[in-house]
Amino acid sequence: MKVYLSGEIHTDWRVQIIKGCDAKNLNVTFISANTDHEASDAAGDCLGEESTAFWRDHKSAKVNAIRIHHAIKTCDLAVIRFGDKYKQWNAAFDAGFCAALNKPYITLHDESLTHPLKEVDASAQAWAISPEQVVEIIAYSINP
Amino acid sequence: MKVYLSGEIHTDWRVQIIKGCDAKNLNVTFISANTDHEASDAAGDCLGEESTAFWRDHKSAKVNAIRIHHAIKTCDLAVIRFGDKYKQWNAAFDAGFCAALNKPYITLHDESLTHPLKEVDASAQAWAISPEQVVEIIAYSINP
Amino acid sequence: MKVYLSGEIHTDWRVQIIKGCDAKNLNVTFISANTDHEASDAAGDCLGEESTAFWRDHKSAKVNAIRIHHAIKTCDLAVIRFGDKYKQWNAAFDAGFCAALNKPYITLHDESLTHPLKEVDASAQAWAISPEQVVEIIAYSINP
Amino acid sequence: MKVYLSGEIHTDWRVQIIKGCDAKNLNVTFISANTDHEASDAAGDCLGEESTAFWRDHKSAKVNAIRIHHAIKTCDLAVIRFGDKYKQWNAAFDAGFCAALNKPYITLHDESLTHPLKEVDASAQAWAISPEQVVEIIAYSINP
Amino acid sequence: MKVYLSGEIHTDWRVQIIKGCDAKNLNVTFISANTDHEASDAAGDCLGEESTAFWRDHKSAKVNAIRIHHAIKTCDLAVIRFGDKYKQWNAAFDAGFCAALNKPYITLHDESLTHPLKEVDASAQAWAISPEQVVEIIAYSINP
Amino acid sequence: MKVYLSGEIHTDWRVQIIKGCDAKNLNVTFISANTDHEASDAAGDCLGEESTAFWRDHKSAKVNAIRIHHAIKTCDLAVIRFGDKYKQWNAAFDAGFCAALNKPYITLHDESLTHPLKEVDASAQAWAISPEQVVEIIAYSINP
Amino acid sequence: MKVYLSGEIHTDWRVQIIKGCDAKNLNVTFISANTDHEASDAAGDCLGEESTAFWRDHKSAKVNAIRIHHAIKTCDLAVIRFGDKYKQWNAAFDAGFCAALNKPYITLHDESLTHPLKEVDASAQAWAISPEQVVEIIAYSINP
Amino acid sequence: MKVYLSGEIHTDWRVQIIKGCDAKNLNVTFISANTDHEASDAAGDCLGEESTAFWRDHKSAKVNAIRIHHAIKTCDLAVIRFGDKYKQWNAAFDAGFCAALNKPYITLHDESLTHPLKEVDASAQAWAISPEQVVEIIAYSINP
Repeated sequence: MKVYLSGEIHTDWRVQIIKGCDAKNLNVTFISANTDHEASDAAGDCLGEESTAFWRDHKSAKVNAIRIHHAIKTCDLAVIRFGDKYKQWNAAFDAGFCAALNKPYITLHDESLTHPLKEVDASAQAWAISPEQVVEIIAYSINP
Repeated sequence: MKVYLSGEIHTDWRVQIIKGCDAKNLNVTFISANTDHEASDAAGDCLGEESTAFWRDHKSAKVNAIRIHHAIKTCDLAVIRFGDKYKQWNAAFDAGFCAALNKPYITLHDESLTHPLKEVDASAQAWAISPEQVVEIIAYSINP
Repeated sequence: MKVYLSGEIHTDWRVQIIKGCDAKNLNVTFISANTDHEASDAAGDCLGEESTAFWRDHKSAKVNAIRIHHAIKTCDLAVIRFGDKYKQWNAAFDAGFCAALNKPYITLHDESLTHPLKEVDASAQAWAISPEQVVEIIAYSINP
Repeated sequence: MKVYLSGEIHTDWRVQIIKGCDAKNLNVTFISANTDHEASDAAGDCLGEESTAFWRDHKSAKVNAIRIHHAIKTCDLAVIRFGDKYKQWNAAFDAGFCAALNKPYITLHDESLTHPLKEVDASAQAWAISPEQVVEIIAYSINP
Repeated sequence: MKVYLSGEIHTDWRVQIIKGCDAKNLNVTFISANTDHEASDAAGDCLGEESTAFWRDHKSAKVNAIRIHHAIKTCDLAVIRFGDKYKQWNAAFDAGFCAALNKPYITLHDESLTHPLKEVDASAQAWAISPEQVVEIIAYSINP
Repeated sequence: MKVYLSGEIHTDWRVQIIKGCDAKNLNVTFISANTDHEASDAAGDCLGEESTAFWRDHKSAKVNAIRIHHAIKTCDLAVIRFGDKYKQWNAAFDAGFCAALNKPYITLHDESLTHPLKEVDASAQAWAISPEQVVEIIAYSINP
Repeated sequence: MKVYLSGEIHTDWRVQIIKGCDAKNLNVTFISANTDHEASDAAGDCLGEESTAFWRDHKSAKVNAIRIHHAIKTCDLAVIRFGDKYKQWNAAFDAGFCAALNKPYITLHDESLTHPLKEVDASAQAWAISPEQVVEIIAYSINP
Repeated sequence: MKVYLSGEIHTDWRVQIIKGCDAKNLNVTFISANTDHEASDAAGDCLGEESTAFWRDHKSAKVNAIRIHHAIKTCDLAVIRFGDKYKQWNAAFDAGFCAALNKPYITLHDESLTHPLKEVDASAQAWAISPEQVVEIIAYSINP
């Protein structure tokens, strides 16, 4: 099973999920976008300098999309994580992308976010609060 | 041309675009999700009361999705508006939905939001700051 | 909006939904499979007699499928009704067909059936108990 | 060849098919939904308790769907089994899902069920009465 | 309903079906490939002369395909007619095209042809022997 | 029939095809990209000035693509014209876009260009040298 | 590369192509329908006897289709062979199936058949007369 | 990651990209069309001689398309190279093919070509000037 981990990069939820699956000896491959914020913003810099922030962002976002769209199209399941800071529109964008392609995804966020995330949760297969719950669902989906 | 207007419901950007297109006698049909916040939150209430906020939101979001997903699938162009308040994850979700289906969309937001919206903008056909610009692009796309 | 009405043929739920939408002046086109049980079973008889019940059923079911599959593929919304009698596997089949095509559908059934219908309900946009509720959702989806 | 085994969980038809294919040294991978009824009903419990049966079922069905929809989308052939008890709407749902995706499936049921299953059988590639027949068809499809 | 009439051009089966549907006041649009054999063979001649029969055929077949593929892709039902003469591979080709796109089709041929047509019939929704039977099925599919 | 006219903007081939179809009273709707070179290059200027030619071109090309991709996706036939000047990569791009979507297209160019256009011609339904030939093929495809 | 070999079963063209590719050490997997005529006609017999030839054929053709449609959907290239005897409508059907799915195929037949096969050849990537030519094209497509 | 290298055959850009990825130990498979100009033009010669240049080109282009279309459909990323000579319409055609299928591609060309390539660049994920830049983007897409 190939699992795409999307969203928040400021806590270690990815590590927890990966370790949790390892501990259960699950046959899972994980893929993420670049989780190093500065390196991600600089993804397009090798193509030449830009004088405006917009085009620098634009180029980097398009370079990052090579990896991200490929990850979504080829994954069997996505986990979309929303933390309590920042706009995190890229995570919601990934969820919409999954929904349109009929790719199953699990959202991972606190109860405090359920109202603004109601559209995103409504198309999800599950809403989890902790990485442990995500691990349980992945484990169950592989060996029910 | 059928245009889906997605996102912010606290300013009159929809009205401005519709009036602007009317003034130019453009043959455009507009469609939106329910823009009345309270009525939207209550969309599923007719199906019976819920004791938790999560399931009330869930039911309403799914009922709203009947209209929204149909709008995205049948539109020729989407306009995705981000204001300066609230999470607006549904707008980013709609953008991702469009991107996965190869539906063209225009983003409409201030310059202050370009960095957190870089992934959303990177898959857009255009980024506009004002409703007038959106009207110009619609006009041009119909009668170049 | 084109609405496909699938399932139970022994109560007047179709009439109630159609009349309810008429009373609200909603612009809806309804389509159903043949709801006359005997005529439906005889749909293939014009192609020649069969000596076994299986092949008679087979021919009729395939002739009926011309109308049914076309209805599902072209509808904007389906209503899938389960009554309290009979197997009604064709209704569940139609629901699965909708789910695979990402077509939104509403289930209509009593609370007593929620457990055996949990997979069918899980892919639905809404579960209704009465035709009036279905009318409300259709009305809302057209004019929120 | 990847074969998805859907439906009845109260007799040992799955075991018979798997053993039959083993005995013929066929290169087949089998996949099923969770066939432990209680565990299947509890699939979503790890995500938190629910106060109503409907939402407990809903959560579990959605978690189960991660496995089931993936199985249908990736299988080369499905076997859909109907026993003589229970509603078994999930089996008919799976058949409709297969039909919409043009996935070939074989139905496995007694002659007594042919009339209520006529729509399900009409889209099938074959109707079998015994697991042995299914094994023969799988064997033939691999080594004709 | 849009019906594509494919195959044999030496008997008046098309006229019989069209008249039969007219007599029943059915709302049907019919479309066919060019049924004038010589004009069909000459479809590409306006593009310049060819020195070999193969390339003349090739050009004409490609020009004819503009009309034929469009007809298949947009029709709701196809009728594929096999007569007792000639190879009629284009008719079988159209049937395969329909099958791959999940377009329903009815075959129309004598009993003497059932064995060589078994693959073509196996993917059809019905096998008819007379144009009257086809008219009945079209009528039933519109007004069951 | 909806026909998309792509490519060269320096001769009056579009007018000749449109007039030719008018003269034959054919029911055809024509659509083109913006054929005014300067206006096309300025399509994105309303979104704000750019300091580099690349990004000005980029914005304009994306705005133009709203119209062009919509035209290709909804047309029934495309005519792709190559003249004797300029690079005309947009025309070849449109042809590849058509080929991937299985949309039929006719190329229109002189014999001198057949070698460099061999890949583009190989996926076309026809190669024409004059607008009159294109008119004949359109006429034949509508009324063979 | 996976190559599907469709059509005539009375000469050894399949063996020639397979041996030719072996001699060139090409990494090719070949797949065919059942080429034993009697066994193919009996493919459905294990499901129970039929009293009419039509339904026996029907059942066998559907069982054979499990293998054939899977072969077409997963192959990278098809070779469609027409001999000088029999109707061979299944071969033309397979070609139409390929064409609708945009699967490349090569036809293999004598010059005497080019006129009745003009539609089938028009959608092919190549027309070959001998198995050696097919081998050359496969070799070239792998190692140009 | 599977990368398709399309376009110019007169400089060693392919070798530079392949060596660059090798030097970084990247797990990449490269595929190209036949880059030997004369052999490519002769791809269809084994099928028999032609008396006109057009049909010779046609046959060879169709044989080459077996490899090229397969490459595009199965690659994860394409690199489309435009040099300063020749028409190179096949490269633009490949870019359009990618765009219609939502396959990400990078263009590789000098700044002098940005204006005529603006439509091709507008659908690309990145524009690179040197093979080194392409290597960096591939490396980043694999190990960000």
